[in-house]
Amino acid sequence: MEEDTVANAIQLFGNVSSFIRKFIFRILSVGPIPNHIAFIMDGNRRYAKKWNLDLRVGYKAGILALICMLKYCMELGLKYITIYAFSIDNFKRRPEEIQNVMDTMRDIIEGMLKEESSIVNQHGVRVYFIGNLRLLSEALRAAAEKAMNVTAKNDKAVLLVCLAYTSSNEITHAVQESCNDANRACHGGEKSEIKEEEEEEQYPIIKLVDVERQMYMAVAPDPDILIRSSGETRLSNFLLWQTTSCLLYFPKALWPELGLRHLVWAVLNFQRRHSYLEKKKKQS
Amino acid sequence: MEEDTVANAIQLFGNVSSFIRKFIFRILSVGPIPNHIAFIMDGNRRYAKKWNLDLRVGYKAGILALICMLKYCMELGLKYITIYAFSIDNFKRRPEEIQNVMDTMRDIIEGMLKEESSIVNQHGVRVYFIGNLRLLSEALRAAAEKAMNVTAKNDKAVLLVCLAYTSSNEITHAVQESCNDANRACHGGEKSEIKEEEEEEQYPIIKLVDVERQMYMAVAPDPDILIRSSGETRLSNFLLWQTTSCLLYFPKALWPELGLRHLVWAVLNFQRRHSYLEKKKKQS
Repeated sequence: MEEDTVANAIQLFGNVSSFIRKFIFRILSVGPIPNHIAFIMDGNRRYAKKWNLDLRVGYKAGILALICMLKYCMELGLKYITIYAFSIDNFKRRPEEIQNVMDTMRDIIEGMLKEESSIVNQHGVRVYFIGNLRLLSEALRAAAEKAMNVTAKNDKAVLLVCLAYTSSNEITHAVQESCNDANRACHGGEKSEIKEEEEEEQYPIIKLVDVERQMYMAVAPDPDILIRSSGETRLSNFLLWQTTSCLLYFPKALWPELGLRHLVWAVLNFQRRHSYLEKKKKQS
Repeated sequence: MEEDTVANAIQLFGNVSSFIRKFIFRILSVGPIPNHIAFIMDGNRRYAKKWNLDLRVGYKAGILALICMLKYCMELGLKYITIYAFSIDNFKRRPEEIQNVMDTMRDIIEGMLKEESSIVNQHGVRVYFIGNLRLLSEALRAAAEKAMNVTAKNDKAVLLVCLAYTSSNEITHAVQESCNDANRACHGGEKSEIKEEEEEEQYPIIKLVDVERQMYMAVAPDPDILIRSSGETRLSNFLLWQTTSCLLYFPKALWPELGLRHLVWAVLNFQRRHSYLEKKKKQS
């Protein structure tokens, strides 16, 4: 009987929260809503340390916070969400910690596809894994590829998970691909009549759009807002190319503590600057 | 007589300020001092508007603030200072405004070289102009090139002035140069015996270091701190490649209002995170 009362109270609290949230989102929607928000989920380990918890519990709290944040973003009507899940630099951590993260991520991906009530299935989200996926364990890479194939027809929203990613790696990879394309275009045609001395002048020109087309992140527009939790005011090699005109927001809360208020604050700031930023975009 | 009193009072105030500043810097120097700070000097036009001043006066106030900031940085013992003077995107402003900025900059450069008491001559500063200088007016480009030649032997500190600069342009330029180098290396040797079919496999590999070497900013290490005035939390296509691990600081003050307290605050924040950032660097 007492359990029932507690359950009812929790459900009532949930309903009231959901009602208030939807009310806030309805008000926010009067203004422009960002198209794309990117998150650096920093502070899971510090959260575990702060509350004397096991590292795994810290990561689990981080995942819960991520699920909540994704839900809020969907409710708010965002089309693109990017998360920095694992940097190439993170491969320098202890092997058992890397293994732990890889296993947890594989579990999440598999759970996400199986459960009908998961964010992906409930909201029709297409998932992309962004980065040098060849660096991942075979099991995780297979799970990531499966998730991309299974969700390929979803079109309500797009979740971009940066795994084994750094911006330097992305840019170098894009450059290499643009060079290969340009070389192919140059050498593919008739070349036999070009004189040796003239060859010096025949280097193909690579344009900005060629490099941009080859970026891993080319599947999405540039983010409007980048949020990094835990008060660190650095980009840590994340979306350097794409954050040219992006609003940066560094709340002090650790990732598992990040909540609705931070999202609302970021969107309000975006709305405040929106007309100015649009004017700038039109100039370019 | 009265004028003398005022002049004495001003001198006394200047001496006291200088003494306090040196005292603060002495205390700061107990901790690590950043090697390189970059500035986005945002808010000159808003400053003019705020105080109902002519645009030219706004820019002049900005230049005064810049001279003070450079002086503080030199006194603090910084080796590299970078400023974002004019973006490629700024060429979209009204022609008379562009002309005004170009003329002002030429005057500054010429004055800087002539006056013995200028920051450059007084502190032995080497000046680099960073960006696509071909986009500048001929007179300004000539002045910039002269300044680089005249200061080439100065070695106490380095001032990098980003003129006609954007990061996308810098990266694309570096990519193009790396490709040319790679192509030269590939085609320069003996190639006559390579079979046609094998040529497909002969595309030169371009590495991260190759691209980095070709960056305009390769003459300096990556900045430790980037400060953008006027509360705008965006990078606006400035040093995107170089700010991977850089601390970002966005004080609300407009550029002409930026002062010693902001510099001290930025350095204190740098010192607070220094051991953590050093540990990260050693891991890479």
